[in-house]
Formats: sequence, structure tokens, C-alpha cells
Amino acid sequence: MNIYDNEEFFTSYIALRNGQNYNDLLETPAMLSLIGDVKGKDILDIGCGFGKTDSMLIDMGASSVIGIDKSEKMIRKAMAENSRDRIEYMVMDAEDITLPSNAFDIVYSSLCFHYIEDYSSLLRNIHRMLKSGGMLLFSQEHPITTADYDGSFSSDNRSYTFSSYQKEGRRCSTWFVDGVITYHRTFSTILTELVQNHFNINTVLEPKPTENAIKELPRIIREYEKPSFLILKSYKI
Amino acid sequence: MNIYDNEEFFTSYIALRNGQNYNDLLETPAMLSLIGDVKGKDILDIGCGFGKTDSMLIDMGASSVIGIDKSEKMIRKAMAENSRDRIEYMVMDAEDITLPSNAFDIVYSSLCFHYIEDYSSLLRNIHRMLKSGGMLLFSQEHPITTADYDGSFSSDNRSYTFSSYQKEGRRCSTWFVDGVITYHRTFSTILTELVQNHFNINTVLEPKPTENAIKELPRIIREYEKPSFLILKSYKI
Repeated sequence: MNIYDNEEFFTSYIALRNGQNYNDLLETPAMLSLIGDVKGKDILDIGCGFGKTDSMLIDMGASSVIGIDKSEKMIRKAMAENSRDRIEYMVMDAEDITLPSNAFDIVYSSLCFHYIEDYSSLLRNIHRMLKSGGMLLFSQEHPITTADYDGSFSSDNRSYTFSSYQKEGRRCSTWFVDGVITYHRTFSTILTELVQNHFNINTVLEPKPTENAIKELPRIIREYEKPSFLILKSYKI
Repeated sequence: MNIYDNEEFFTSYIALRNGQNYNDLLETPAMLSLIGDVKGKDILDIGCGFGKTDSMLIDMGASSVIGIDKSEKMIRKAMAENSRDRIEYMVMDAEDITLPSNAFDIVYSSLCFHYIEDYSSLLRNIHRMLKSGGMLLFSQEHPITTADYDGSFSSDNRSYTFSSYQKEGRRCSTWFVDGVITYHRTFSTILTELVQNHFNINTVLEPKPTENAIKELPRIIREYEKPSFLILKSYKI
């Protein structure tokens, strides 16, 4: 089962997202700073969750948004809370997307790719669905973070200890519940696979918290020691 | 003074390079695996040291090699040990290269860029000197390594502790001698500056040691926990 459909996980995750959190303070602003003008654009959001960004994209002028997520609970919440005329939400697995070719100006994906086992196959599918010159903008957990799920900050939050960076593959960790499965890929794999699948790399971003974010959530200051997120903007060649 | 002209540093460095070392076992093979066919190519080597790679490049069929290094000691050693008809060695600072425009098919640089303060200005100068479509292939210390010069492996070599990743700039460390100055840049800065200076990213590589390398130098196995080097291959647009 998809962890996001696990009752315990889902409840804890929604509680997290309702408070001050890394997504709202760090990841989403960084993603939106790179997306550019979305007016008139057709957008696919892979791993849309409860649709918060999708309704924002429509409000920013996007022509249409399709939000897909593997979790039925998430899609139900998205339909209830972030419904708009030009948004379609679908329960669909990112690893098996069956949507038309040459259909999207932008493929957007927030913190989903580290759950994907076959990254190369996903990139090929995204390439197929993008219009010529279309943008792929995605974020994922930073490779330093995905390397080692025993990785941890010192008690004073001033240094970070990790291992296994060059040992790619499956990781099983605890995040609200036991048995959360993610896949570690190195920086070089993430970037080089993009190039090999005919994406032109435009921007690499490891977002830093603003002073305001630190005021709202003081422990986010440890992002200065070790980043949590990696964001990549590239274009279909 | 350039540290490579410091007598104590120079002696220790040459002793290191004469034994089993990370350059010969890991970094140089990875660089040469990416350089492709050098037959008939005009090559600039920035930070050529004692010219070991330069004579190799000529032996591999390069048309000409110019090797520059800031250290007079290194250039003297290069002239004495790795001289060839079509190699020219020059004492020249990487941060102030005055060589012709559109002159090189390949700019090669091994483990020099982390000594450079103004990376963007270096990239602009390299872009100027490369022929259209020419290749920039460089290695540097990995950003996880340059982040924190107090960064260290655990005593069993199975985990690595570091900090200050998002605090870019000058680092002062001890490597054979006190006061070795390097500059930390994040992965995202390194990559995005390349794109902004009109280089097309082709390959990102964090080399892993072979079984043979581990046999020759057992502690190199800790590269599997934390990489030492970052290698980038890109082309002038």
C-alpha cells in the first residue's frame, strides 16, 4: 500500500502540513520562483498531494492543470479543498502515467521523485508528454539526505553525519510510520540521467531559508549546514 | 605565495603523488574516461602541476597541449619530467590567463577550481578561449568536502560528519602545511554558473573506486560513504 493512504501516516502528514513546515517555508517558494509565467500553460503535477499548488497555479493564470497522485485519500482531499474549473485530479501512479503525448507545457513535481524506483523510465515518459521545449521542474529530497536514513544532525544542529552516498538504491526509513520506502540516487545520476533522456539543464537549486522562515520555524536554520531539498529545472530538447 | 611553491608543501605533495594516491587511482582515470578521442585536438590544461597528464594527452594523439600552473616549482618539474615536442609549459595564474581566443578544442583542469575565488570570471575566460563547441572538462574537490574543512570520517571510516554546506566562500585548512586557502561553492552554484556562462552540461560524475583501487589503497573504500571529487563535462554553446 501507498504510505499516503495509511491512516496513521495520512493524519500525521496533514497535521505537519497544517503547521509551519519545510514545504511552505522553503520548498514551494523556491519551486514557484523558478516556474516563470504560467499564463496560458497546460501543466501536469506529478504527486499533487492535496492540490494546494494546483489551485495556486490556476490562480496564477495556468490554462489547465492535471494533478495526479497515487493516494486516493490525497485526491479526495484535493477535490474537496482545491477544486477549480480547470483542474482535473486523478488517482494515478507516477510510475505508470497514461496521459497523452505532447500535451503539457510544464511538468511540475514536488517531493515525489525520491519515491520512484525507475527514474529513467519516468523521465522518458515525461519527455513524451511534454510539448517541444516544455519545462520539467521537480524537487526531491537532497541526495545527502536520501543517502543514509540514519543520517542525523548533532544535538546542537551544527553538523550532520551521514554515510552510503555512493550506494544507490532502496532505503527503508521511519517517517511517522515504519517502512517508508524511498530510492537514493547520487547527484551525478540525477543530473546525467536528465541529460541522457534529452533534457537541457537550466537551473540547479538547493534552497536556503529566508530570515522570515527562520523566525517562523527556528530549527530550519540548520538548512545552512545541510540542505534538505534539491530542485532541478530543465527543458525538453 | 602559492602553496605549491612552499618547500615543505611541495616535498610532501610530491611524496604523496609518488605513492598510491587518489589522483592516480580515482580522479585521473575518471577524467580520461570522459575526455573522448583527443587526436588532433588543441588542449589547455589549467593547473597542470608536474605535467603527468599533459605528456599522456600527447601520447594519446593530441595535436598540442599548453600546460599552465601558478607554481614555478611545478612548471620546472613538468619541463624536466614531462616534456614533449608539442607541449608548452608556462607559469601562469588560472585567475589571470592571457591566451588567445577561440584557440582550444578542450580545456582540461584537474583539482584546481576549488582554489579559484572568482569562478564565474574563470568560466567567462575559458568560454572565450574555447573554439565553438569546445569541451570544458574539470574536476574539483566535492562540495561536501569543501563545505567544512573540519569535516571528518568516523574512526571506523563508516560515516562522515560535516557542516556549513550553504555557507559559500573562503576556507582555510591544513593540508601538509597550515593556511591552505580554498573556496567552497555548492553543487547548485557550480552547475548553474556553468549554464549561465553558456556551457551545456553533458556529464556529472562522482567517481567510485574500482576493486583494484581498493586493493592498492584500502582506505579509498570510504569513497563509498562520501565522495572526494566532482567531475563536470560541458560544452561551449
